[in-house]
Amino acid sequence: MAELDASKLKVTLSEKKSKLLDNDKLVFGRSFTDHMLSIEWTEAEGWAAPEIKPYGPLVLDPSCCVFHYAFELFEGMKAYKDAKGNIRIFRPDMNMIRMNKSAERICLPKFDGAVLTDLIGKLIKIDERFIPEGQGFSLYIRPTLIGTTAGVGVHHPDRALLYVILSPVGPYYATGFKAVSLEATDYATRAWPGGVGDKKLGANYAPCILPQLEAEKRGYQQNLWLFGPNNNVTEVGSMNVFFVFKNPQNNKNELVTAPLDGTILEGVTRDSILKLARERLNPDEWEVNERYYSINEVAEKAEKGQLVEAFGSGTAAVVSPIKKIGWKGSDIDVPLLEDKEYGQLTKTVQQWIMDIQYGIDEHPWSHVIA
Amino acid sequence: MAELDASKLKVTLSEKKSKLLDNDKLVFGRSFTDHMLSIEWTEAEGWAAPEIKPYGPLVLDPSCCVFHYAFELFEGMKAYKDAKGNIRIFRPDMNMIRMNKSAERICLPKFDGAVLTDLIGKLIKIDERFIPEGQGFSLYIRPTLIGTTAGVGVHHPDRALLYVILSPVGPYYATGFKAVSLEATDYATRAWPGGVGDKKLGANYAPCILPQLEAEKRGYQQNLWLFGPNNNVTEVGSMNVFFVFKNPQNNKNELVTAPLDGTILEGVTRDSILKLARERLNPDEWEVNERYYSINEVAEKAEKGQLVEAFGSGTAAVVSPIKKIGWKGSDIDVPLLEDKEYGQLTKTVQQWIMDIQYGIDEHPWSHVIA
Repeated sequence: MAELDASKLKVTLSEKKSKLLDNDKLVFGRSFTDHMLSIEWTEAEGWAAPEIKPYGPLVLDPSCCVFHYAFELFEGMKAYKDAKGNIRIFRPDMNMIRMNKSAERICLPKFDGAVLTDLIGKLIKIDERFIPEGQGFSLYIRPTLIGTTAGVGVHHPDRALLYVILSPVGPYYATGFKAVSLEATDYATRAWPGGVGDKKLGANYAPCILPQLEAEKRGYQQNLWLFGPNNNVTEVGSMNVFFVFKNPQNNKNELVTAPLDGTILEGVTRDSILKLARERLNPDEWEVNERYYSINEVAEKAEKGQLVEAFGSGTAAVVSPIKKIGWKGSDIDVPLLEDKEYGQLTKTVQQWIMDIQYGIDEHPWSHVIA
Repeated sequence: MAELDASKLKVTLSEKKSKLLDNDKLVFGRSFTDHMLSIEWTEAEGWAAPEIKPYGPLVLDPSCCVFHYAFELFEGMKAYKDAKGNIRIFRPDMNMIRMNKSAERICLPKFDGAVLTDLIGKLIKIDERFIPEGQGFSLYIRPTLIGTTAGVGVHHPDRALLYVILSPVGPYYATGFKAVSLEATDYATRAWPGGVGDKKLGANYAPCILPQLEAEKRGYQQNLWLFGPNNNVTEVGSMNVFFVFKNPQNNKNELVTAPLDGTILEGVTRDSILKLARERLNPDEWEVNERYYSINEVAEKAEKGQLVEAFGSGTAAVVSPIKKIGWKGSDIDVPLLEDKEYGQLTKTVQQWIMDIQYGIDEHPWSHVIA
């Protein structure tokens, strides 16, 4: 059974050289670079030789299990150009660990994450000219693993395809770093204990669109997922979510997000924010907690003036400030800094992460591509 | 916005004429007929002209939303040859209603089910020679709807492809009408209230394979899904499940299955069994109930000699008798008729349904293709 092996890489360069889009023309995940990484796997032989080849369509039998039973998972990462022209990626080890966990859960093949990171680096180098420059701009990396066994019996896949495509992107929201409005969703549930809500499976995404469209219909930009009889806050759209509360007992601020109980995506940005907040915020002034909290607690705290700010977190948007939350027919107003579209910590955290991503703050989380 | 329109059908016949497999060579969903039905949809134009064309691969951009976010759903139906040579399909209206419900839930386009049924009929007529003859043999029909929008932003699809492929099949289990052993799964959950477990989405299937493989490792053939703090019985593998209990209070038999609360697939076979049982079983001897019941109730009843029989139900296997259930380290034995691989009602119900499917019992559920 062959392991994933970067030394077997075959490179076929594209004859086409696409024109680059201007930064202001970049729409998230819409345009792609000239090449892709593609690696086939079979149960009998293991991982075939990796190939970098011209970006092009997949040709698959209509009975392939990816079309019928959602044997599919992905990751989201970004490559950044730093001021010296180095290419950096952010905590790729975390994405590789998560991707392997996702694969294991739906019986797709695992692989050595360091080898895939190395191969992704080689792909990025080939398409380096597509990395847009400027704060908020990057090359979005989409590693994808699909089951390709033909036949509609419900079995574990004995064939799979791992591929990586690259998309030059600007800020996720066309509106830029602007606070969003959310509608809390109590009629649909994203994930459940014993389910797969903590894995980056395709299966977790399609069912999330309807609640988002419903929220949009009523004038909100995203939906806020709740869970259980207490309506605990879990995630926002397809991001993790953080709240800041003022604790009147000890006069500290509390940064809070839901714990990883199997219903929450194990966000790399979420983890980074928690680690940086615990390191860098003054413990005399701050508590950082992973705990359950309900939308009712948020509403109560807002009423008492103890809701300080809130933001979503994820690779695509990094952080996304929140300005209001529709719940039970009225809106919970989330404070923002005067004349700004964000709260103080939201801005601070965004700067921390982006400074590491762009190599302004030299940090072990930022991986320079050789 | 164009509706699905059978009068626009374009037919391109295959130049290849595949050799038919012998009945004993048929593996469920492994071989397909020479043609497929394919219909494109765009948000801007609606449904394009349907096409029947040679069976062949799908050519899709690697960024298509079906590969990343599981915009995919399907149906399972069967076509049967009756003794007079008519082609029959079983309750296609039910599959079309369910397919539209699945589509609505993940923002894929809806369509007129009667029109699709008509088009499926035309496809089957063209590939009629593939319908295998004999009890337990049929042509499995797989209508599939996938989102084909290119780009990795998480949006509702503005392009989709509806296609139908056909596979000549024999009995689902290679072992034939033989009782299966199940392992009750308490460490993973298939579906939850507010989720999508009642829809025939790809998303519901990939996460089910690991528990099945785990069950197989320990010598069972399928897993039995439980739900909630009481460990209520919900489904078996990818089928609905029925139990027969003896009620010592009134000396009646009770046929029981879980209620449609959003966590249970709305099986066409399930519905048919309930309707026929309510019509045909003597109410002085039988109760037919859709209610919650736990694995503990099953174990208790088995211990007291009140467990009569049990079976799974679904389009692929029709009914699938159960002989034992592993739970908490020991096995619940499910009675079978002496020297048989099934219980009395299991056999009766299977005969009822198959007699309708093969046109032996002339019944409004059996739809003859014109």
